[in-house]
Amino acid sequence: MEQYPVPIANLIEQLSKLPGIGKKTAQRLAFYILEMDKLEVEKLSKAIIEAKEKIRLCSVCCNLTDEDPCYICKDENRDSSTICVVEGPKDIIAMEKSNEYKGKYHVLHGVISPIDNVGPDDIKVKELLDRLKDGTVQEVILATNPTVEGEATAIYLSKLIKPLGIKVTRIAHGIPVGGDLDYFDEVTISKAMENRREL
Amino acid sequence: MEQYPVPIANLIEQLSKLPGIGKKTAQRLAFYILEMDKLEVEKLSKAIIEAKEKIRLCSVCCNLTDEDPCYICKDENRDSSTICVVEGPKDIIAMEKSNEYKGKYHVLHGVISPIDNVGPDDIKVKELLDRLKDGTVQEVILATNPTVEGEATAIYLSKLIKPLGIKVTRIAHGIPVGGDLDYFDEVTISKAMENRREL
Repeated sequence: MEQYPVPIANLIEQLSKLPGIGKKTAQRLAFYILEMDKLEVEKLSKAIIEAKEKIRLCSVCCNLTDEDPCYICKDENRDSSTICVVEGPKDIIAMEKSNEYKGKYHVLHGVISPIDNVGPDDIKVKELLDRLKDGTVQEVILATNPTVEGEATAIYLSKLIKPLGIKVTRIAHGIPVGGDLDYFDEVTISKAMENRREL
Repeated sequence: MEQYPVPIANLIEQLSKLPGIGKKTAQRLAFYILEMDKLEVEKLSKAIIEAKEKIRLCSVCCNLTDEDPCYICKDENRDSSTICVVEGPKDIIAMEKSNEYKGKYHVLHGVISPIDNVGPDDIKVKELLDRLKDGTVQEVILATNPTVEGEATAIYLSKLIKPLGIKVTRIAHGIPVGGDLDYFDEVTISKAMENRREL
């Protein structure tokens, strides 16, 4: 970065810390920002700091929120007897888009992964178990991703929750709608075969 | 964006205004920013606003700079009799990396492009001509890109500058070093043939 004036070099450095933004992209973004309207630049800078300042974890479900409890936990029209457990806040967005699920959520903020040094205490497992104590919850749907870590986390949680007398289910895995058998890996296909149902 | 808390929706919106950042990428970046260290987030936000506030155009060469004149214009070890004309500040960085050129620069901030409504008055042509008045400059190297607009701009400038008795040259175009004939388009190849030299 020798050749850049300090403020540009600094901007490029900060931008390249973001995921998927290499040095070249950071450079392109930096020059773009320099040519943006000053007002727009201020808006961007403010949006970054404000999001960080105003967004916390919901004290109930651990989702990202600017009000506590979050809008889903607060919603009395949603079924409190079901909790859908997801890895991250983005999964809730995806789930909500489908308009299929009307229960509550719990965000783990990660998965158990011994290789990355992430154990049950590093994700929101304790918070989930706390929610199961008062007897309202009758079903926990484990919607962690179908990766090795997601599966392991689902199995771990199911072993903890089943003894409490609560129904534990796992979302189905198979060929996505519109998908082509040809296109998917053998694990997806064997899952799809394993989970086949009678018509 | 209906489902996001306002500060997150706002951050995603601001990020997706950047070039090459679609809604999905903006969402990924936003969630990453929310999980970053608060100090790092402050650094990012500050770097954006500071770059915009501190960086101006050099009053001599129109390059982006935080001091006026810029470090290249100020450098007395560089040859003031040659000006290399480039489209943007990034081109100077690329040129400087090659360590080949020791003269001065002039940044046009664009190219003449009637289709985009960019005429000679919209880029730094007047500023370039002003620099040629006092007789120090003996050669102007036109290093605009080999696109239709870049070529047209080079031809336009050459017609303005040649009558002043100043040598006007154009950087060579051809197959890049390490390039494969097979890989390049016919225009590059015909340029390379046209500009062939005797060995």
